[in-house]
Amino acid sequence: MSTQMHDHIVKSYDDEQRRLLDETLRMGEMAASQLEAALDVVQRRDDKAAERIIANDEAIDALEQEISHDVMKLALRGPMARDLREILAAIRIASDIERVGDYAANVAKRSTALNLSPPLPHVAGLHALGTLAVKQLRDVLTAYRDNDIELAQSVRARDAEVDTAYTGLFRELLTYMMEDARSITACTHLLFMAKNIERIGDHATNIAENVWFLVKGEEQLPPREKRDDTNTTGAV
Amino acid sequence: MSTQMHDHIVKSYDDEQRRLLDETLRMGEMAASQLEAALDVVQRRDDKAAERIIANDEAIDALEQEISHDVMKLALRGPMARDLREILAAIRIASDIERVGDYAANVAKRSTALNLSPPLPHVAGLHALGTLAVKQLRDVLTAYRDNDIELAQSVRARDAEVDTAYTGLFRELLTYMMEDARSITACTHLLFMAKNIERIGDHATNIAENVWFLVKGEEQLPPREKRDDTNTTGAV
Repeated sequence: MSTQMHDHIVKSYDDEQRRLLDETLRMGEMAASQLEAALDVVQRRDDKAAERIIANDEAIDALEQEISHDVMKLALRGPMARDLREILAAIRIASDIERVGDYAANVAKRSTALNLSPPLPHVAGLHALGTLAVKQLRDVLTAYRDNDIELAQSVRARDAEVDTAYTGLFRELLTYMMEDARSITACTHLLFMAKNIERIGDHATNIAENVWFLVKGEEQLPPREKRDDTNTTGAV
Repeated sequence: MSTQMHDHIVKSYDDEQRRLLDETLRMGEMAASQLEAALDVVQRRDDKAAERIIANDEAIDALEQEISHDVMKLALRGPMARDLREILAAIRIASDIERVGDYAANVAKRSTALNLSPPLPHVAGLHALGTLAVKQLRDVLTAYRDNDIELAQSVRARDAEVDTAYTGLFRELLTYMMEDARSITACTHLLFMAKNIERIGDHATNIAENVWFLVKGEEQLPPREKRDDTNTTGAV
């Protein structure tokens, strides 16, 4: 093979790999915006906007399909080990982002159910929790873009803050439900919305772990603290 | 290359691909057993057994790591299109199974919280819902093993039954919470356990869609009915 031809193939492989990263980052930014829009819509009690957010989730799903397709094309070329890690990381990260999009759409969907009852004070707590999750998501996407394992590690460490905020809100909601039975339906929606956001935090952590894998390969990740104890809580 | 040598390489590639399928199926059977054990433990109110289920989840996670590793090795050989679909399907299915394992472990974890309050009648409904999900999971694993797209399609269609059972249980739990505020903490755990099982049904559907992709490639899936309307329920 001529050097020129070889260069051409190498360049186009790099181009496609760059395209895969760009698509995944774009997908991530879409999911972060969806989550922000969903948080906003909960506060504004705007059913029309909620429906738009729910409909937008299809664009995220379509992008995941496109990424799978690009992964297929790249993997067929028989990549090197580092390239393959990039491909594997992209497909896993895209799958995490797809889930984030689903959770954001579910927050929007449940907001329309919340709008059938009077406003609840806990919406502010949900917003604070969601804002933490948006930051986690944006930070981990930056870490992915820049191969920044320190930022990825800090996202992973900060998941404990998301868990603490979730646990606090969870307890507040349970107490409120016990005091006012009429709030139970609405509070149940808020419980699930809070859980969705806590899960988004977990997906940000998964992405952080894939950034580690991308940069460090099979090397063992350092241990990490968890603070969500709502699974085994017997009383509020 | 001699024919003999070529045969040797081809055989070992097929062996590794077979190994990948076997590992994924084994992982799936582990998750199905975990879910069964979790459902059993909820009824028997056995904290010790619940802890064993929670600890077992690590074995499923370890198997997912092993599958990722095998996928890396296979993809490095520059597979053909159909082989690559098998590799992609395996990694996606393994990721769905890993989530099923998490949900099963979470059902077990929450059962220990339930054991802090008196038994609730809805445990039977949870068991029925869970039994549906176990069947969905086992059927879709069979569909994957046999490349049986008809069985995969029937799993996908039957997800509506899981959704209907979930919605019914969800409504019952809300009504119960309204009637007896002391049951709220326990009912909230049951709500999340029911949601976990409903999500397991969604993962069985994802696996069914990957079986379709494996056999049919990019061909469009037929449309499907959804019956979980708890996201937008304003009243019970």
